[in-house]
Amino acid sequence: MVAFAILIFVFLGSVEGFSTKSQPCTYDNTRMCKPALATAAFSTLSFLLGAFTSVVSGFLGMKIATFANARTTLEARKGVGKAFIVAFRSGAVMGFLLAANGLLVLYIAINLFKLYYGSDWEGLFEAITGYGLGGSSMALFGRVGGGIYTKAADVGADLVGKVERNIPEDDPRNPAVIADNVGDNVGDIAGMGSDLFGSYAESSCAALVVASISSFGITHDLTAMLYPLLVSSVGILVCLLTTLFATDFFEVKSVEEIEPALKKQLIISTVLMTFGIAIVSWISLPSTFTIFNFGVQKEVKSWELFLCVAVGLWAGLIIGFVTEYYTSNAYSPVQDVADSCRTGAATNVIFGLALGYKSVIIPILAIAVSIFVSFSFAAMYGIAVAALGMLSTIATGLAIDAYGPISDNAGGFAIGSAALVSLALFGAFVSRADISTVDVLTPKVFIGLLVGAMLPYWFSAMTMKSVGSAALKMVEEVRRQFNTIPGLMEGTAKPDYANCVKISTDASIKEMIPPGALVMLTPLIVGIFFGVETLSGVLAGALVSGVQAGASDHARALGPKGSAAHKAAVIGDTVGDPLKDTSGPSLNILIKLMAVESLVFAPFFAAHGGLLFKIF
Amino acid sequence: MVAFAILIFVFLGSVEGFSTKSQPCTYDNTRMCKPALATAAFSTLSFLLGAFTSVVSGFLGMKIATFANARTTLEARKGVGKAFIVAFRSGAVMGFLLAANGLLVLYIAINLFKLYYGSDWEGLFEAITGYGLGGSSMALFGRVGGGIYTKAADVGADLVGKVERNIPEDDPRNPAVIADNVGDNVGDIAGMGSDLFGSYAESSCAALVVASISSFGITHDLTAMLYPLLVSSVGILVCLLTTLFATDFFEVKSVEEIEPALKKQLIISTVLMTFGIAIVSWISLPSTFTIFNFGVQKEVKSWELFLCVAVGLWAGLIIGFVTEYYTSNAYSPVQDVADSCRTGAATNVIFGLALGYKSVIIPILAIAVSIFVSFSFAAMYGIAVAALGMLSTIATGLAIDAYGPISDNAGGFAIGSAALVSLALFGAFVSRADISTVDVLTPKVFIGLLVGAMLPYWFSAMTMKSVGSAALKMVEEVRRQFNTIPGLMEGTAKPDYANCVKISTDASIKEMIPPGALVMLTPLIVGIFFGVETLSGVLAGALVSGVQAGASDHARALGPKGSAAHKAAVIGDTVGDPLKDTSGPSLNILIKLMAVESLVFAPFFAAHGGLLFKIF
Repeated sequence: MVAFAILIFVFLGSVEGFSTKSQPCTYDNTRMCKPALATAAFSTLSFLLGAFTSVVSGFLGMKIATFANARTTLEARKGVGKAFIVAFRSGAVMGFLLAANGLLVLYIAINLFKLYYGSDWEGLFEAITGYGLGGSSMALFGRVGGGIYTKAADVGADLVGKVERNIPEDDPRNPAVIADNVGDNVGDIAGMGSDLFGSYAESSCAALVVASISSFGITHDLTAMLYPLLVSSVGILVCLLTTLFATDFFEVKSVEEIEPALKKQLIISTVLMTFGIAIVSWISLPSTFTIFNFGVQKEVKSWELFLCVAVGLWAGLIIGFVTEYYTSNAYSPVQDVADSCRTGAATNVIFGLALGYKSVIIPILAIAVSIFVSFSFAAMYGIAVAALGMLSTIATGLAIDAYGPISDNAGGFAIGSAALVSLALFGAFVSRADISTVDVLTPKVFIGLLVGAMLPYWFSAMTMKSVGSAALKMVEEVRRQFNTIPGLMEGTAKPDYANCVKISTDASIKEMIPPGALVMLTPLIVGIFFGVETLSGVLAGALVSGVQAGASDHARALGPKGSAAHKAAVIGDTVGDPLKDTSGPSLNILIKLMAVESLVFAPFFAAHGGLLFKIF
Repeated sequence: MVAFAILIFVFLGSVEGFSTKSQPCTYDNTRMCKPALATAAFSTLSFLLGAFTSVVSGFLGMKIATFANARTTLEARKGVGKAFIVAFRSGAVMGFLLAANGLLVLYIAINLFKLYYGSDWEGLFEAITGYGLGGSSMALFGRVGGGIYTKAADVGADLVGKVERNIPEDDPRNPAVIADNVGDNVGDIAGMGSDLFGSYAESSCAALVVASISSFGITHDLTAMLYPLLVSSVGILVCLLTTLFATDFFEVKSVEEIEPALKKQLIISTVLMTFGIAIVSWISLPSTFTIFNFGVQKEVKSWELFLCVAVGLWAGLIIGFVTEYYTSNAYSPVQDVADSCRTGAATNVIFGLALGYKSVIIPILAIAVSIFVSFSFAAMYGIAVAALGMLSTIATGLAIDAYGPISDNAGGFAIGSAALVSLALFGAFVSRADISTVDVLTPKVFIGLLVGAMLPYWFSAMTMKSVGSAALKMVEEVRRQFNTIPGLMEGTAKPDYANCVKISTDASIKEMIPPGALVMLTPLIVGIFFGVETLSGVLAGALVSGVQAGASDHARALGPKGSAAHKAAVIGDTVGDPLKDTSGPSLNILIKLMAVESLVFAPFFAAHGGLLFKIF
């Protein structure tokens, strides 16, 4: 962490040879900008700030979840309605916390940095991108570490408990049950929280850095400049209003009413948000302005920018529903997979994999449409605000998600928004690195594309292997306890929970280093040795391949979840789980993190990168 | 088939409005070229010729394999050495047949077409590309249909036979055993044969079409023009020489000596071939010439072209060895996976998937290096000849492969060469469609990239689902026979083999239509409605994502093959098999076929494509 902060400082400081004099600005030679050394220092600072905020978000999320779990259990005695409200509210609180926390720190940082930078907005918002990098790198370790932790425990607990001993899920006789439950909290709550916080921070940063060299930045129109933050703020208000529909305006009386009520939530928030964006766009934006678009300024109207945000928002709704369709046991895809269990685990896994592959199609098309629309209207800025549009109703999404394992809507959001965020960051990187085309027909870019597309696979191989190894140890420990502790199966003796927790903890800390290093070092190595063209290829390749792999992993074997507690289903579930909970979500972060890291280091790569091609 | 031929004729004929007059050439306005209508007719003809040759290659391959199997069984009674020689030679014969067949028909077609085209080489070699398309489309149906056929039978036979009834593989008491063995022949021999034949035809066509607008074509130097065919011819001679080392110069006495002997074969053929290419390059090529490179002519020296072929050749060797490392039970990766079986099927599948993902890394890097080297020296022509270099020792590869299930070298070759071939075809397409850059930063290209990267997943979902459904039926039929036919388990009654064969046949014919249509229609739909830029994006996306998915599917769960006949391993094997034998190999064809189809239709798309953007 600290090492990486030092790296940022040294690399970015070296861009102008550690000079402390002001330099002519990159995009406007007539004015003077602050030196690269200052930007290095402020980037490092905002990196640390982002990392800190991310950790705080994750930590508070876990606190809320633990507290809410206990309260929900108590309220459940009073009836479904009461319990639902508590669970739902706790999820909403987490969503509000994430959004508000990220927004507040970012707003304060911008205002503080402005005291130093004054009218040099180019340097100011370049320094702010460190915030996104900090947030994301913490999220990576949270997701990977948390994912390994929870899945090692889960796989271990399920295989021995459910398959070999025929005891139910979360049975206290199972020695791995505590590790499993702790893991759910770490992986699902803290991981998801810091992941979404990272997306927020990154898409805001991407939008801001593009805006700073557009007409907002040039004319120093702060209200228009902070449009991305305004969209997110309105999102918080809208979600607040929406939650009232679920908890106060209507009442949920039975278990069957919960799922329709949650779906209504998504629709209500999306509709309200559409009006919200329209109002914000009308008030804060000048009716016509220009956006920097790879070397040229493109003219954009305020209603066009409104459409960019709206298309992201509605694409999010579609992705949410499609994710639910493929992951909820109320619909035919999952029922088919469950049905395939009757011919054994193998056909179950085959159907689950096929389902995962298939579930990618509509989300990818939705993402492609939003990219096309927002890109056509407002270039990379449009994509960044479309990402914010998709994320703006995330508080509602998290509230639904936190309610329980009905569906993984938030996961769908996380993947969809990751694609848009990464593309926006990629665009910002390309702008900062002074490239105006990324031509697939040049060998430098093409090999980047090929190698970049490989990275998600490499990364998945590492994390899957880690989960496998940790699960092996867990299975052996659980078996050992069942075999050696007398009275365990009868419930008269207590298992040694601590040992299982220790196995998961040790494994997650040890095993998260190599995949983490792969993600953090690849942009640096490629940028330094192969230069910005190859790095663009790598980013584009990782983006297109990571989105598919992430989305398909996500749905892949959620399938069997709904099916009977049958051995075949448990095996299918066990195969699907590390894909869904460890590899899949981490891939979101992989593509975002590589893009934001490239963006932060863009001035350095542009100045000193591509060593290998310089030598030969 | 016939419908598609008519489509080719109508679409290509419409480029110049079915005019029968000669037109000024595209690349040299001073000369007159034959009308598009003639090229449409000859393209259709060469398409049919390619399809026919492909079917003949597959059919002869199956004949050879059936004949060789019987002879090998007989020779095996005389000792390992004799049996080895027969098996090895039969594989070599198939390799020679494929290469020679493809080469001969292509050579005859070129010379016949030349009678009409005369000095219009541009039109001549454009018409010849239909040959590649014909070869590949037959290969697609062979691979997909064969893959579904064989895996439905295999999965069905294994799950009931090995897991439920505890009888060994290929036991005559198993009702699905005949369907399984027929399937092996159809899928592995005919499918692989027509796949590799397609690669040959396509890379030759891609090289020829680029060469026709380079200085070879302009100065009408036929010897230099046919350099791609000469490389393949030398490959046949070298492989012939190499096989003598295995069958005549040295003798294999025991089973342990077979694997080292086969490995030596690969090395010997690669070394000999390096000299072979050097001689061909020295004799047939002018010392300096120019190659068409997206709008400009690039100067290339003959030794540079030699290096392009050589880098492909050696990359093939590396890929062969890596594939073996990850798929042979003599090395640690597979042993690790086998070891993981002791904690059950789920950890086995997890490790197998991780292994598959990991096995991609080195081949992708080898492909990236060969692309970079050959692209830098001789642009897309370099890549096409690198692909031919990789394929030139394929007769040896097939001989090794046909020997048995020690390793899947030929599969590795198939994937590696598919990547190069598709890239070369992609380059030829871009040249023909008059695009000079494929810029990821334009929305048209980017959404193409995203959607293209999704296609392999969609395709895999379709084929996996097909295998799953067919296997379900097979499992039920096999169970039914075991339960209802008295004396079956005791070996006193015969199972109803025919019923199982029928299930596989029906399933493969019915189920190969949707994935086939996806591959054949996508380039047409994208080209007609979205135009050549988006189509370039789709091709590039499908290429980078298909290579990874194909390679990882290939190795994915070969792993468990080596392990003990344990239930967990069988389940792991069963999950891995459809990935390896149905989805994986078909993905090679998916990327090649889409590229060659785009190439054939390039003039049509350039003239009439992109309707959607023209309307709005």
